Amino acid sequence: MEEKIKNVWEETRELSLGTTPEIPRLETPPTPLEFLRDYVSPNKPLIVSSSATLHWPATTLWSSPDYLVNTLSSSPVSLHLTPSGNADSLSPCPHSSLCFASAHVEKLPFSEALSKIKNSGLGENCVVAYAQQQNDCLREEYSALNGDVEEDIGWATEALGCKPEAVNLWIGNEFSQTWFHKDHYENLYAVVTGEKHFLLLPPTDVHRMYIRDYPAAQYHYSKDTGEFKLELEDPIRYVPWCSVNPYPSPATKKRDLARFPLYFEGPKPFECTVKAGEILYLPSMWFHHVRQTPDSRGLTVAVNYWYDMRFDVKYAYFNFLQSIACSGFDDVKDEENQCLKSCDDPSASNVENGSDMAHLASGYDSEVSDDVETHDHSACP
Amino acid sequence: MEEKIKNVWEETRELSLGTTPEIPRLETPPTPLEFLRDYVSPNKPLIVSSSATLHWPATTLWSSPDYLVNTLSSSPVSLHLTPSGNADSLSPCPHSSLCFASAHVEKLPFSEALSKIKNSGLGENCVVAYAQQQNDCLREEYSALNGDVEEDIGWATEALGCKPEAVNLWIGNEFSQTWFHKDHYENLYAVVTGEKHFLLLPPTDVHRMYIRDYPAAQYHYSKDTGEFKLELEDPIRYVPWCSVNPYPSPATKKRDLARFPLYFEGPKPFECTVKAGEILYLPSMWFHHVRQTPDSRGLTVAVNYWYDMRFDVKYAYFNFLQSIACSGFDDVKDEENQCLKSCDDPSASNVENGSDMAHLASGYDSEVSDDVETHDHSACP
Repeated sequence: MEEKIKNVWEETRELSLGTTPEIPRLETPPTPLEFLRDYVSPNKPLIVSSSATLHWPATTLWSSPDYLVNTLSSSPVSLHLTPSGNADSLSPCPHSSLCFASAHVEKLPFSEALSKIKNSGLGENCVVAYAQQQNDCLREEYSALNGDVEEDIGWATEALGCKPEAVNLWIGNEFSQTWFHKDHYENLYAVVTGEKHFLLLPPTDVHRMYIRDYPAAQYHYSKDTGEFKLELEDPIRYVPWCSVNPYPSPATKKRDLARFPLYFEGPKPFECTVKAGEILYLPSMWFHHVRQTPDSRGLTVAVNYWYDMRFDVKYAYFNFLQSIACSGFDDVKDEENQCLKSCDDPSASNVENGSDMAHLASGYDSEVSDDVETHDHSACP
Repeated sequence: MEEKIKNVWEETRELSLGTTPEIPRLETPPTPLEFLRDYVSPNKPLIVSSSATLHWPATTLWSSPDYLVNTLSSSPVSLHLTPSGNADSLSPCPHSSLCFASAHVEKLPFSEALSKIKNSGLGENCVVAYAQQQNDCLREEYSALNGDVEEDIGWATEALGCKPEAVNLWIGNEFSQTWFHKDHYENLYAVVTGEKHFLLLPPTDVHRMYIRDYPAAQYHYSKDTGEFKLELEDPIRYVPWCSVNPYPSPATKKRDLARFPLYFEGPKPFECTVKAGEILYLPSMWFHHVRQTPDSRGLTVAVNYWYDMRFDVKYAYFNFLQSIACSGFDDVKDEENQCLKSCDDPSASNVENGSDMAHLASGYDSEVSDDVETHDHSACP
């Protein structure tokens, strides 16, 4: 079975995606028909050069030192706080195994939030702050900035036949990164300042992500002590999540390479850097891991447009592929399941459905597979 | 495994195709973008009403009694002759098992060919004639008729980004039918006179077709004796072909229902009648079985446009699904393989590759999965 699954990885690359890690790039935006035929239908990523956003006021305004603070002033915004990484990603849980850890979220005036983001990763008590509330936040919390970008990506809207379901703003620095995961949306991801570095794997590579159920946990940050506490949810709730960290630390590298051979020994992930002004089409269901490089003032600012995806035959095929056990996968899964069992004994009713069908009914605000952040362990002391 | 495969059938219907046998119908042609987004990308059939071909001269000219004969006069055309059915379909082979039988093909003046088609299924020596050379024949043998139809289907050409690879003419009567098979083309199938009755199964239902390797054989017709002789090719050559006859005779019905439970006990096939003037979009890789009803002069005339399909992730998923053994399938396969072995002992080098990859390099003229004809056993004495 492992050979048949590996054949899918190879055939998808040979027929459609290409066998090198590069993502196709267009100097001018595609027509709606080209976008649909050459990228959305074959579920294939694309980068469009900065010609796509030249007319956005944001491309000049948002780089200016004071514009964001002056515009948003004291508007309350949601800030995600984590210690040395591990928000909505895997972290050692209180009872020694791994858990799916969510950030501490607090509402505070934008000027304070921005200051915390700029100071992320610095100082003795390492706190990493990331403004990345994925609940249509650009049109809600950040509505004062909404007029600085297009309300949708015209050619994508026409191709997909609908307006964006959500438009999200992301403000962070190099200490925040996004753990491997997938979204059930067609994603148009525009970088406004700084750069984003993506690792991308197609949905056909699902076994290479070693998706398993992890108990959900939450960071709680105390202003008084300046410390984080990670607590398992009660009652326990399980979240299916990607196990692979593509950049393991020297200390864990050998172990990770042995535990996740399908990832580390398989075809190289697709890789790209999206620069200021450029737009990445990140197709639905693609696994993506994101790091960022800030601009000269220490910020990376991006806007992403989530369009509803079509749940058609590709989705049914994906579910079938995912349902097939792969020997290289299952050996490790058994080992990991043992590990999880030692953490707690989940009751069946609290285990989330590992199938993607579980997400179909949920909106973006409760979507467990939304973009998430984590912090590089090596960044903080 | 059987349950997982059945889940794909169900999920594809629930998410995308619908759970009833009906094919969606549009009263006016779709825009290229709608066609691409709502039908080609999700690999979903569509019927467009006769408004799509109202402007074709063929819709009036080809129904007139003498037009075809007057226009083509003595042009030589290729006519496919079979006895009581079984051309490019399964037939008992000379050594008692089943083979993949191809028609006797002869070139003769159109007026003679037309007369043989009209007399198909009649008389003592049953001969069924069908003009259906699928080698771009409308633009070659029948080029005198070419100006009576559009050279392409405009909205399909724009959506798919290419002109048709082949345009074929079909002239037959109710005694010819097309055995279940699939094509590696996007197919726009326009009925000009008479009606065509399609049974359609999506590619995800591949196991329900019980595709197996059958030895290729050829009909030879003798004008002197008025008899057909079926001969196995030498050296032997194997062709992967669908085993299911959806309309078994009373004599074979019980056996067929027991041998092909995945077909007969699974979801009903999609079903439609395409009337004169209407166009069926028959998506690439869909299995189709076709019967026809003639017009008042005893003919069904149709034109189909084959556009290159994209071999993208859907195709890789299909190959994976097809590679997975299904218990309900394999039990019968073993039994059938035994049956085939008794017919001859194939050398490995002569067995065709059952995978679709074997067809990728081949053009339409050598494509084994092209549309084929067979004749209903019950029609002739």
